[in-house]
Formats: sequence, structure tokens, C-alpha cells
Amino acid sequence: MSGWVIIAGLGPGRESCITPEVTEAIAQATDIVGYIPYVRRIAPRAGLTLHESDNRVELDRARHALQMAADGRRVVVVSSGDPGVFAMASAVFEALEAGDATWRALDVRVLPGITAMLAASAAAGAPLGHDFCAINLSDNLKPWDLIEKRLRLAVEADFAMGFYNPRSKARPDGFARVLDVLREGCAPERLLIFARAVSTPEQKIDVVRLAEATPEMADMRTVVLVGSSQTRLIERAGDPIVYTPRSVS
Amino acid sequence: MSGWVIIAGLGPGRESCITPEVTEAIAQATDIVGYIPYVRRIAPRAGLTLHESDNRVELDRARHALQMAADGRRVVVVSSGDPGVFAMASAVFEALEAGDATWRALDVRVLPGITAMLAASAAAGAPLGHDFCAINLSDNLKPWDLIEKRLRLAVEADFAMGFYNPRSKARPDGFARVLDVLREGCAPERLLIFARAVSTPEQKIDVVRLAEATPEMADMRTVVLVGSSQTRLIERAGDPIVYTPRSVS
Repeated sequence: MSGWVIIAGLGPGRESCITPEVTEAIAQATDIVGYIPYVRRIAPRAGLTLHESDNRVELDRARHALQMAADGRRVVVVSSGDPGVFAMASAVFEALEAGDATWRALDVRVLPGITAMLAASAAAGAPLGHDFCAINLSDNLKPWDLIEKRLRLAVEADFAMGFYNPRSKARPDGFARVLDVLREGCAPERLLIFARAVSTPEQKIDVVRLAEATPEMADMRTVVLVGSSQTRLIERAGDPIVYTPRSVS
Repeated sequence: MSGWVIIAGLGPGRESCITPEVTEAIAQATDIVGYIPYVRRIAPRAGLTLHESDNRVELDRARHALQMAADGRRVVVVSSGDPGVFAMASAVFEALEAGDATWRALDVRVLPGITAMLAASAAAGAPLGHDFCAINLSDNLKPWDLIEKRLRLAVEADFAMGFYNPRSKARPDGFARVLDVLREGCAPERLLIFARAVSTPEQKIDVVRLAEATPEMADMRTVVLVGSSQTRLIERAGDPIVYTPRSVS
């Protein structure tokens, strides 16, 4: 069996963030599998078949990739950001575990990428420069109560935070509740960063205090970062810098 | 003023994880500043001055970089992993905030890299595929009580976890206490991953249950990942796969 599956991270958007090992995997592939906008980032070439699929069909896509590899194809499953952070790697392993026993012998590897939270952090300064957590705010795959519980504990732990999928058309209200939970446990001066379309030409970084934050500042293309109680703002002529010091004062 | 400072992530070890934008920044630099082993990853060339420094002098190094940029030099501060995750970005911004007011006008940027935790996660499967946190276990810059508090809250939140700097010669005992805290709140079957020298030729990934974990499994080159209560192990002929499903059951 000479097929393989590589689950590869394309990074947050700009091409210069794609690691050489991911570029090389794509060059070796016979098939690219992924959500439509990610597959469209791959240049077509002879010998390469592009398989676009909608979102919300992650398990179908994963099974398709594994079956093609079992048939000897060299398959790259493309994710944006890092495939191991709220992306395709877990879906592929779910499919592998539940699927044909022979799939366990397949060569399946994950190549990391720059995840949106860390690209947003770099664009703003270093707000995640101390202990932090990452929470997916979508309640499609977990109960809302668990999201709220994690938020409250993260506030109590004084983690900086990165929020993925803060708000969508199907979930317009959850993020307002997130802001309410933050306001119960954090001072009004707490720093938030709304990073939209990070590392693309449409990138927009807005730094606000918790008191000024509104739900409408987030959408599906936004990653929201919340500083810890120690996070600082450096004002200057250009964009401000937000960072969390290494020491706890 | 034509100088600049770029704080760049070299990724966890292998060259194929360095993003093209970081490679380009190094190509444009007149000066490279960093901890000795990271600077030694940069190929010498005419016109490029390499400034190696010991660890524990991060602020001196940061001031040096900023002063050189103020003098018109093009300076890359190299970090391993991602500079925004327990690395040099926060140190540079601490120095900038406390330093000469003219430094605020400098062109200072952060280029993200693949952080060790996410490279380790990719090597093991997708153990951080659901909500997770990152904790630096060194108490050099924060009180030990805060580390324990964060650990207990992270266990209560059922985050997967990534631990940086779990153990060193100067801090031989802290990681034993970390394992004790985990044992208070997690089942003996909880999955841990000890990822040593991740993405280098010496990479070693050990997957163990909490009941079997010992402090000696970690050292300064190890990143430790702890699964959530949902994290699963797929046994197979080769290395096992550890992943956290996207859904909470």
C-alpha cells in the first residue's frame, strides 16, 4: 500500500505563512480534499484532482480521504490554520477509528500550520505571551453550558484567551452572552482584540476595552483574543501594541 | 529611520517548518539577535552579524535589538517555536514600553511560527483538537501557587493542556507536584504525551496513562500534552494515535 493521507495546515491566509513541508506535500499529492475555500487556495496542475466539499460534511470528507489513500492515492486534506486546532485532524481520526480496520495501517500524518489565534496575536503584539487558553465558541458540537463553564473557569484562572468561531448567522446571540460572562469576572478595562481576516489583504485588527466591546464586532471570519488581567497596551502614533508580560506582578 | 525589528519564530526544529516570510526576513536582516542555539540555526553570510546571547538575558537582548533598529539596522530577533508563546515577543515589548520614547516609532513586527505544543500535537495525532490551554510550568517569573491554581481550574474546565518548560535541573521537583495535581482531578486512564525534541532528528513521542507517568519522563526539551477526559487512543501496529474528538459526548 503506497497511498497516504497528510492533513496539512495552510495557515491563516497569506501564502508566506505556508510551511515548506506543506508546500512539498501538496506537490507530491494526487488528490486534495477540503472545504471549498481552502481547496481553492491550491493551484491546479496535471495529475492533481481537487475535491471540494461544503462545511458540515467533515466526516464524509475524512472517509473519502482515507478510502482514496487505501486505494493507493496520495491525499492531502487541507485545513486553514493548524489542522489540529478546531479543524480537520480530529475529524480524520474519528473516521479512522470508526472505519475499516485496515485503515489503521495507513500512513496518516499531520503537518502543523500557523493557527489563526497565533497569527492574530502576532499582528497585535503578544497578547498570548503568558498562559492562555483556546475555546471554540460554536455550540454545534458541544452544549452551551460547557462553553460558559469553561469561560468562567478561564476567567478565574486569569488565562489570556483565544476564541474561535465567535459568532455566525446561525448563532447570532452566543457572543453577547460571552461578553456578559466576561463582564461578570473582568474589569471594564480588560483588553480585547477583534482580529478579522487575519493575514489576508482584508485584515482588520481592532483593540477595545471590555466596556466598549459589542457582539457586532465579531463574525465568522473573526478570532477574538482576550487579554489576562496583566495584559498591557502601548499607545503610539501607529497601531497600538498589546502584550502580556512574562512576569506576573 | 529605516531600521526595523522583526521578532520571528523559527518553529520547533526542522527547517521545513520555517515559514517563507521568516526566511525572507532573515535574508533582509543586517543583524540576528537571540539565544545561542537559535542563532546557530542561522546560516552566516556577508553583511549579516550574528549576536548570540545566553538565556535569562531576554530584556538585555531586547533592548539591544531595539537600539540597533533605532540606529537604522534591520534586526531579526529569533525565537524557537512561535515568538508570541513563552518566547521573545513579550520581552521585546516590555523593553519597548520601558525604554526610550522614540522606540515607539520603530517598525516592530512579529512573524508567527509553529509552536512546540502544536508540533507535538501534530506528531501524536490531534490531542488538542478541542478546547485547550497552554501553561508555562516554570516558576521563574510567576509564583508556584498560580501555576497550581491554573492547573486545578484547567482540570475542572476539562481543557486539554500543553505544558512548556515542565522540568529543569534548577526545578527538579515542580513537575512531580503537577502530576499530583492532575491525579487529584483526573482518572488514572487520562492520556499524557511526552514529546521530546519535537520535529528534530532526536524526536521521541511517548504516550502514557496518568497512572504510569513519572516526573523523569520530562526534561527541558520536552513539551507535555495532557488530554481532556474525552481524548482517545487508537492502537495500531505502528505508533498509536491520540486525538480529542470534535464533539463532547
